[in-house]
Amino acid sequence: MDQDRETGTEFQPKFDAAGLVTAVVTDVRNGDVLMVAHMNAEAIERTIATGEAHFWSRSRGSLWRKGETSGHVLRVAEMRVDCDQDAIWIKAEPAGPACHTGAPNCFYRRIEGGVLVRA
Amino acid sequence: MDQDRETGTEFQPKFDAAGLVTAVVTDVRNGDVLMVAHMNAEAIERTIATGEAHFWSRSRGSLWRKGETSGHVLRVAEMRVDCDQDAIWIKAEPAGPACHTGAPNCFYRRIEGGVLVRA
Repeated sequence: MDQDRETGTEFQPKFDAAGLVTAVVTDVRNGDVLMVAHMNAEAIERTIATGEAHFWSRSRGSLWRKGETSGHVLRVAEMRVDCDQDAIWIKAEPAGPACHTGAPNCFYRRIEGGVLVRA
Repeated sequence: MDQDRETGTEFQPKFDAAGLVTAVVTDVRNGDVLMVAHMNAEAIERTIATGEAHFWSRSRGSLWRKGETSGHVLRVAEMRVDCDQDAIWIKAEPAGPACHTGAPNCFYRRIEGGVLVRA
């Protein structure tokens, strides 16, 4: 089974105890990591069906279409899964800033000498 | 506190109940996502101190210097933290295939039409 997961062609996400996998979204234009979030089975289905990234909001406990309020949707260019199928990589074209803070992506600070520096 | 986490210069990782944050490693040369793993406080410290990526292995329950057996270490070029400080992005130069399967990275399959296709 674990061997199948690594080498096979069947998409069988390995959900954690909360029914989630980790999702990493990068900007298809420049490779920057835009955000890290979580997906449940429904979020994966909706993402594949619509071509727009959906996640599971752990804080709100609900399905979440990224950009549903801001308009800053993430148009999926490619989806990949990792070796043990507990993480998904989405290459996306963002319609606007991907971070709720208004930054282009959520990773706007470098860790340097133990403190954070604006990237 | 949450506001400080988003806007401040203090590095204060938001560990989950298991004492972990999510870590995403990309290849500094081409932006590919190499792997997704987890870090505890010690893994973060060792990574900063040595310039080589360390993680917490949930399956083995131990600190793990990536490449300690394979030699395929991940040399850290830059570390970033996301808005709410529960995810870390490492840009790294890999000394060899980053995936234990021998693939250059763990995301060697695209999700297409519900099945997996070699990327």
